Amino acid sequence: MSVTADLILTGKYLLTMDQKQQLIEEGGVAIAGDSILAVGKGKDLLARYPGARVMAEPHGLIMPGLVNVHTHAAMALFRGLADDLPLMQWLQDYIFPLEAGLSGEVVYQGTLLSIAEMIKSGTTSFCDMYLFAGDVARAAADCGMRAWIGEVLYDFPSPHYGALENGLAFTRELIDRYRSHPLVTITVDPHAVYTCSPDLLTRLGRLAGEENALYVIHLAENEEEIRTCRERYGRSPVDHLESLGLLGPRVVADHCVMLTNAEIDLLARRGVKVAHCPESNLKLASGIAPVVQMLGAGICVGLGTDGSASNNDVDMFGEMNTAAKIHKVDRMDPTAMSATTTLHAATMGGARVLGAEPLIGSLEPGKKADCIVLDLDQPHLTPIYHPTSHLVYAARGGDVIHSVINGRVVMEHRRLLNLDEGAVLARAVEIGAGFRRGSNGG
Amino acid sequence: MSVTADLILTGKYLLTMDQKQQLIEEGGVAIAGDSILAVGKGKDLLARYPGARVMAEPHGLIMPGLVNVHTHAAMALFRGLADDLPLMQWLQDYIFPLEAGLSGEVVYQGTLLSIAEMIKSGTTSFCDMYLFAGDVARAAADCGMRAWIGEVLYDFPSPHYGALENGLAFTRELIDRYRSHPLVTITVDPHAVYTCSPDLLTRLGRLAGEENALYVIHLAENEEEIRTCRERYGRSPVDHLESLGLLGPRVVADHCVMLTNAEIDLLARRGVKVAHCPESNLKLASGIAPVVQMLGAGICVGLGTDGSASNNDVDMFGEMNTAAKIHKVDRMDPTAMSATTTLHAATMGGARVLGAEPLIGSLEPGKKADCIVLDLDQPHLTPIYHPTSHLVYAARGGDVIHSVINGRVVMEHRRLLNLDEGAVLARAVEIGAGFRRGSNGG
Repeated sequence: MSVTADLILTGKYLLTMDQKQQLIEEGGVAIAGDSILAVGKGKDLLARYPGARVMAEPHGLIMPGLVNVHTHAAMALFRGLADDLPLMQWLQDYIFPLEAGLSGEVVYQGTLLSIAEMIKSGTTSFCDMYLFAGDVARAAADCGMRAWIGEVLYDFPSPHYGALENGLAFTRELIDRYRSHPLVTITVDPHAVYTCSPDLLTRLGRLAGEENALYVIHLAENEEEIRTCRERYGRSPVDHLESLGLLGPRVVADHCVMLTNAEIDLLARRGVKVAHCPESNLKLASGIAPVVQMLGAGICVGLGTDGSASNNDVDMFGEMNTAAKIHKVDRMDPTAMSATTTLHAATMGGARVLGAEPLIGSLEPGKKADCIVLDLDQPHLTPIYHPTSHLVYAARGGDVIHSVINGRVVMEHRRLLNLDEGAVLARAVEIGAGFRRGSNGG
Repeated sequence: MSVTADLILTGKYLLTMDQKQQLIEEGGVAIAGDSILAVGKGKDLLARYPGARVMAEPHGLIMPGLVNVHTHAAMALFRGLADDLPLMQWLQDYIFPLEAGLSGEVVYQGTLLSIAEMIKSGTTSFCDMYLFAGDVARAAADCGMRAWIGEVLYDFPSPHYGALENGLAFTRELIDRYRSHPLVTITVDPHAVYTCSPDLLTRLGRLAGEENALYVIHLAENEEEIRTCRERYGRSPVDHLESLGLLGPRVVADHCVMLTNAEIDLLARRGVKVAHCPESNLKLASGIAPVVQMLGAGICVGLGTDGSASNNDVDMFGEMNTAAKIHKVDRMDPTAMSATTTLHAATMGGARVLGAEPLIGSLEPGKKADCIVLDLDQPHLTPIYHPTSHLVYAARGGDVIHSVINGRVVMEHRRLLNLDEGAVLARAVEIGAGFRRGSNGG
């Protein structure tokens, strides 16, 4: 049998993030087409697969690309427009008026901007909920970025599709359009229990079931949501979804800050997945999600950045750092949320949240080739005792030098290959100037 | 009158951080010798001071260098050696045994390593407490880094100076040696109330008074310290220092996590300065310092990283990001600890903590020329509405491209000019390998 590799990456370390949590010194990964052929010692791979293109980084650490399980990519255009405000004032005075004037073109450009930042900080997959999801999907596909994308749906008219029925039809159409796409998967995205009627939540649950799609929803994000839901339905958001029969393994629940122990047990029993977004939860003063308890109950937890307007970045290395630290002080226990647990949430945990465990999240033969290389030859990463510790507590997004998605090199020596970064930045500046003038920048 | 500038930096923005908090578009700073000559529009400075060397960054943001008010620089060598452990296990099983075998040479190399990281992440001044402080001072002086440095003093024998009396003599000698140094200032550093007898605390208070030196001490860092102090002296650490007559404007109190409202008022009345180290406090599960209340009471608060062994970096941009967010959730108020307040703590606040307000912390004519330039032309910093927001919530240490300390360019396009970075990293790898083998690496 003669198998050919197209690309071999070698480095000082390779971290598989597979079940054996292997750390291979002088390790490498061989890639054929969109998939991983083999993982092992770099020199063995070079001998076994002659003729492959080789990217050798003697000071490099190779690991699975990070999986950002919750963001609103296009909101990169709103980053820093308004901060340090009460949530409702921020939304009503700044975000909603701008969103009312959005166009597909602006969302496309904002998503390109965020994808540029994501790739440059080590993310290779993201799960996005936003308006004009068709344009989000187009941006991801154009950049060669892996993504789970949904059009945000709610009871009131959308700046994108207008009446709700159009939104449902649009979602169905989007699902059809991307059914066999190698990178983009469409999700069904009710915004939240306080913006979607029980009828809408139920209809979307049915749609997700019929299409075998993820059901992505903001859930139990803050006290206000809990209060509103209790006033309206006499139940907490989690109990409300349970009473509608909607909790199940296809549900990706974003945030989950405000949960009782009984709710944690319920989510675990139902197989609901959780997208943990610590930095956004801190910045909006929502609270600290009980992630240690959720993990203890067996809930699958991934890590997300939320949108850049409430974070204010999509750097998953920063998010890991915050996640690992915040739960220690929340529990007053320095052993809570170890570096290993945190790194798992940002890779395999994220893959499981997205139902993509067989495809991504670890470097194993047969999986899709989504991997990144960090440059370890830097003061803040030297010396190195335990690579996992450095990745969580010391590395920064800017340390990522190469990125491969689906077998294709999307960044080399920090240069983006599928994106004209200069043009994306220039267009973002123009759109931002438009926002500043109070127009919609379209 | 003919005044000549040696160096002019120009950028897209210049942030003065002076009392007027000026943001000058197309701004610049003119430098003569070690001092700032003028701040203003770049083109005006270029016209006014012909012949100066010009560093022009059309996409740059110029601001004061960051002031790290609490670190143990040489502990960069211990970064990631052991994490996610209870404090006493971490100290007794890992840190103390290694520190027992330290040498001046190892501390010198570790300090160089940390200084490299500090400069590359925008810090231009740091306040250090550690063993072999003479070697710490030598490293700072060799690199052209501004620093406040003290030999850590306590009742038991030191791996450096042995018996306590030697430590006192060494501190006096160090103060003499650096009395007129342009960059290095020596401080008097009792380790903490649980490691220093009342007699030692008092003697050091007298020494600091005689020498007009800062009195730097870990204070009220965690519950264990409070409990120990109460058991031993029947008082909290703050009340203990007060009872000894030691609280005053020359005290830099590191951490201050566990304070009552009465203690906050007392520290404010006494003019004690506070070094806030949020990431270390999170990682060691010490708690969240009541910084919003301290600022409200009028206490001067600066920002510090603590050592890299408990952070695990000395990146002040990351520290600002954490500081601004953590207090929002601690207070459940998204308006708590704004970006402006946080940036102030990392610049002017830090300068005031170190008694160096007339010298550093802002870009004003007559002050020492300590400034940094960030590259704004990046996806995570585009578009830009409010530079202060980006600096706190989105920028990373790696965005700093140039650094000037005391009028001298110490980093240009991320290349360190006073340090052989490759040699420093290579030596750190060797020392780390020694630690790993259980030797002291010296």
